[in-house]
Amino acid sequence: MDDIFKTRQENLKKKLKENKLRGLIIFKDENILYLTGFYSKDSGSILVIGQKETVLLTHFIYFEQASQAISAKNTRTVQFLGQKFKKLSEILHGMDIKCCGLEGNNISHDNFLKAKIVLKEDGIEIINATGLVESLRIIKDIYEIEAIKKSCAITREVFELILKKSPDNIRKFSEIGLAFEIEANMIKKGASGCSFDLVIANNEASSLPHHTPSRKIIGEGVLLFDMGCKYEHYCSDFTRTIFLAQSKDSKNQDKIEKLKRIYDIVLQAQIRAVKACRAGISCKELDHISRKYIEQKGYGKFYGHGLGHGVGLEIHELPAVSYIDDTILKEDMVITIEPGIYLEGIGGVRIEDVVVVRGGGCENCYSDSKSLIVLE
Amino acid sequence: MDDIFKTRQENLKKKLKENKLRGLIIFKDENILYLTGFYSKDSGSILVIGQKETVLLTHFIYFEQASQAISAKNTRTVQFLGQKFKKLSEILHGMDIKCCGLEGNNISHDNFLKAKIVLKEDGIEIINATGLVESLRIIKDIYEIEAIKKSCAITREVFELILKKSPDNIRKFSEIGLAFEIEANMIKKGASGCSFDLVIANNEASSLPHHTPSRKIIGEGVLLFDMGCKYEHYCSDFTRTIFLAQSKDSKNQDKIEKLKRIYDIVLQAQIRAVKACRAGISCKELDHISRKYIEQKGYGKFYGHGLGHGVGLEIHELPAVSYIDDTILKEDMVITIEPGIYLEGIGGVRIEDVVVVRGGGCENCYSDSKSLIVLE
Repeated sequence: MDDIFKTRQENLKKKLKENKLRGLIIFKDENILYLTGFYSKDSGSILVIGQKETVLLTHFIYFEQASQAISAKNTRTVQFLGQKFKKLSEILHGMDIKCCGLEGNNISHDNFLKAKIVLKEDGIEIINATGLVESLRIIKDIYEIEAIKKSCAITREVFELILKKSPDNIRKFSEIGLAFEIEANMIKKGASGCSFDLVIANNEASSLPHHTPSRKIIGEGVLLFDMGCKYEHYCSDFTRTIFLAQSKDSKNQDKIEKLKRIYDIVLQAQIRAVKACRAGISCKELDHISRKYIEQKGYGKFYGHGLGHGVGLEIHELPAVSYIDDTILKEDMVITIEPGIYLEGIGGVRIEDVVVVRGGGCENCYSDSKSLIVLE
Repeated sequence: MDDIFKTRQENLKKKLKENKLRGLIIFKDENILYLTGFYSKDSGSILVIGQKETVLLTHFIYFEQASQAISAKNTRTVQFLGQKFKKLSEILHGMDIKCCGLEGNNISHDNFLKAKIVLKEDGIEIINATGLVESLRIIKDIYEIEAIKKSCAITREVFELILKKSPDNIRKFSEIGLAFEIEANMIKKGASGCSFDLVIANNEASSLPHHTPSRKIIGEGVLLFDMGCKYEHYCSDFTRTIFLAQSKDSKNQDKIEKLKRIYDIVLQAQIRAVKACRAGISCKELDHISRKYIEQKGYGKFYGHGLGHGVGLEIHELPAVSYIDDTILKEDMVITIEPGIYLEGIGGVRIEDVVVVRGGGCENCYSDSKSLIVLE
């Protein structure tokens, strides 16, 4: 593992040279994890990468933990109590860096101003150098792809467990109860937890793309699962929309029949995008393939989000995979492909895969057929 | 509920007038929730408060959800697809606001620069107006205090359930398994989930204040619980350190005896701070009361964090309650009081209450004795 962090740090140093920077100040927890192996959510830690040395500045609370996590020889862990930017200034002086890049996308405007003043007093200039670590993270290395695949496998296995339940059994759960059952099984299978707040949406609630699971008991009709876990810090993301068989006198019959027709439209749009996904195509073009199909079927305005997003240490990361994203896909990028159609008062359908971009196509992290499922 | 949001918005408008601002652009999810009732984590929504009208700008993904959540007559919900800041500019023009405050603490430096450029092109000036909503949120209204108390009650009840287990039963769990058992019970009792990643730390791991629960099976010795839930979006926070009875030939005997002595030091420091907590004292002074005691006992350098923090919609909010925080406590502030001592390689002890600041003292949201517990 040490070698991986060393390689990543070396790659970043090349970027720094290209950008004529002697160092970079890094604030984002996931960027620090990527480069050092240390992670603690919202720890407020700061990583300084110079050409010769790397220093992690962290609060007392995280010091022992960080020291244990970071074993690389060229990386020091330094503790601060108050006055974080003053300590940062001392570190930069010690590294002989008089002008340093800083992640302007990962610091609040107020803290940027504070850091600028404190460092300027000590004769250090900062330059906004946004997105350098993210530009490395967008291409996944072998270790990352393995972790994402394992994360996806756990999520998929847990979904299989849910599908094995009878509709009667599923209908004993509330949305929030089912979300919890899913999380419990993810943890049993080795995940550290969910990669985002799971969406379990029954009937009308499924027209809310990010519905918060309620305490309402699940009823017959449509049931949308948007679920994912974290495995060794790597996220999976997975959406399936299934149907629970209805009694003949169901009031929702018309709505459900409509959603079943919509299912096929979303599925065809999704399959077309997966088929077209390969190194060389732009995110915009890929989005357009799914969008054109859904528009032709008359549901364009009910597909109000982008096709997908990058996945890795964060559930949403680069590339954006939207109708305004010019990024050209490259090998070893990992993205979601997840078109959807949402009808207020009726319900919604979304189908989502995670794929690894390859030269001539892409590798799907899930291998199920995605055919319409009606649990009887 | 509508009245509460109206009152809060009116209070904010007074602040705007005091600051000679015609409007305020709000980015923080919890600030939007506080003022409108709408919440969706990381939704990227923007709220604009003017003297006559309030407008929520939200993505398609959250539009239906936001429209349902916001029922106030003077609040409009507007959808954006791309170009969020361009849409923001249109809204400000519609509200006849040519110069607007903006939350510089809740926007990244890069987005601040983007917003500034887009709005300037359209003749709108922005002014950094940091912390206005937070300055309201620091004093809790009756509704908020009730929700926090209920959140604390759930957390406390779940801890009681754990204490009812035999040590043998607790020792069947891993740290992560016990964390999950706690979360399950919180949800059963009406919470929507945990208010932060729970800390369950056994023996040496307890010297890491924010230890991540591991898959290691819990053994005899010290067991630190730092746990909290969310109830109607309000957080609780609660730390207790207990001991699981040891067999006579235990290797850790010396370490555990030392931690038991430390328990009493932390407890006395904690009780002193709770007793001194009242409207009129500064956070710094309150911190000092606990710190002085721990220093006198010779453990000052092992108490490397502040005494506590504000709690509300966020698990960490104002006031900071640290050794450098000059905030004077006022009635209806809600803070944690949580000194700790951490010895690397041995373990740590932390004891934490949530209190509501009152005129002549404070109201503790937990009522247990905090005496040393050894589960036999």
